[in-house]
Amino acid sequence: MSPNPLNSIRIVMIETSHPGNIGAAARAMRVMGLYNLTLVKPRKFPSQEAVALASGALDLLDNASVVSSLEEAIGDCEYIFGTSARARHIGKPEIPLDQAAKEIAALSIAQPESKIALLFGTERTGLTNDEVDHCQELIYIPTENNYNSLNIASAIQLVAYELRQALITAPPQQSSSWEMRQKPASQKIREGFFNHLEETLTELQFLNPQNPKHLMRKLRLLYKRADLTEEEINILRGILTETQRRIR
Amino acid sequence: MSPNPLNSIRIVMIETSHPGNIGAAARAMRVMGLYNLTLVKPRKFPSQEAVALASGALDLLDNASVVSSLEEAIGDCEYIFGTSARARHIGKPEIPLDQAAKEIAALSIAQPESKIALLFGTERTGLTNDEVDHCQELIYIPTENNYNSLNIASAIQLVAYELRQALITAPPQQSSSWEMRQKPASQKIREGFFNHLEETLTELQFLNPQNPKHLMRKLRLLYKRADLTEEEINILRGILTETQRRIR
Repeated sequence: MSPNPLNSIRIVMIETSHPGNIGAAARAMRVMGLYNLTLVKPRKFPSQEAVALASGALDLLDNASVVSSLEEAIGDCEYIFGTSARARHIGKPEIPLDQAAKEIAALSIAQPESKIALLFGTERTGLTNDEVDHCQELIYIPTENNYNSLNIASAIQLVAYELRQALITAPPQQSSSWEMRQKPASQKIREGFFNHLEETLTELQFLNPQNPKHLMRKLRLLYKRADLTEEEINILRGILTETQRRIR
Repeated sequence: MSPNPLNSIRIVMIETSHPGNIGAAARAMRVMGLYNLTLVKPRKFPSQEAVALASGALDLLDNASVVSSLEEAIGDCEYIFGTSARARHIGKPEIPLDQAAKEIAALSIAQPESKIALLFGTERTGLTNDEVDHCQELIYIPTENNYNSLNIASAIQLVAYELRQALITAPPQQSSSWEMRQKPASQKIREGFFNHLEETLTELQFLNPQNPKHLMRKLRLLYKRADLTEEEINILRGILTETQRRIR
């Protein structure tokens, strides 16, 4: 039997405020066959409220990973998608949920060993721009224009439903553009590169000391669009190392 | 401007136990642009818990109709769909949610003046067989085989999402088989016919007095599949009246 493609998907809830939402999210995932939940700095977990709202999905709660940083949550993932109940227009690809689910399905079939993370921000404000910077793409859920107050567990329910539709109920039949692509480097390796790049640019006095993040964000966007492989990153870091050696 | 096709859809929650679920359902509807909520014998409503979980969708809660019977909730509707998180296999058409949403979209465009009700049963047991008898079709939400504990507000969230997708985000472009069909009679007129039929069959001593419902259920299924128009029902009732006159 081939492995369940839903197992390559990880739901990451960042700094969730209400433990009841964690329980409701576990139930929402479980009913659609998603099992991997990671919690970044939850305000309260474990919790009786989470258990009460999980409605029997206790295996999922028991197995949830609790970590203290987003980097830890996604370090081993090749693909990272952010989620939002609105279009954010911040210069990163934004795709509607149904299309994103089909893309993830094609991806998980072409690269079954890749790990895919989907990030959900806090209840009040969603993902921060820094968190969005970690994502290759942003997924948005189309909502009513004048009211986009989508509960976080409901958002996870919709995402889990569309993933189940795309991966299990009606999996892609044809080969896709993903098969042509090489497996990108993991998030940890990419971050190592970005840190190295920032360090080098600082040494070069190329970054505006008043606002060093501004240019780095643009560079991140540029390189993330390219889905760099590990080999490519090794080459780029070789260049940085050589640059540093020369200017020191 | 053409009217919003989502306005022809009514969400009907039957004997909901937890007022928090009513609030969460209001929020789930509102975020997808559905506004018509009818509550049949809610255990507790209005309620502070409902308000707390509605997250600002108070207009929807304020405008919700509260009625004391399912008949009252759907009497003026031409199309009635039941919902379930599993296939029930009780001899009625059962269609997956995504397909049902497309069907409802085609229907609401071909017959914009028709009213469409979607029924949601209690949290614990879903729709009863009697309630299912009122439906032309059953919609099911595909879930994991070994766990189908889908929260009622989550189910409404998924249904509202798929309806928005089908009616607003990607409305049907082409004419459909619905345009070929005549507008069926309203639920009230159909029920009048079924009552008249049962009365006549009782007078004919045709129904098993130990279990009169058994045959009536089969007859209901048969006639509902036909989507009887008001004119056709007038003809059938004319036959029943004449039959009664002759055997009395």
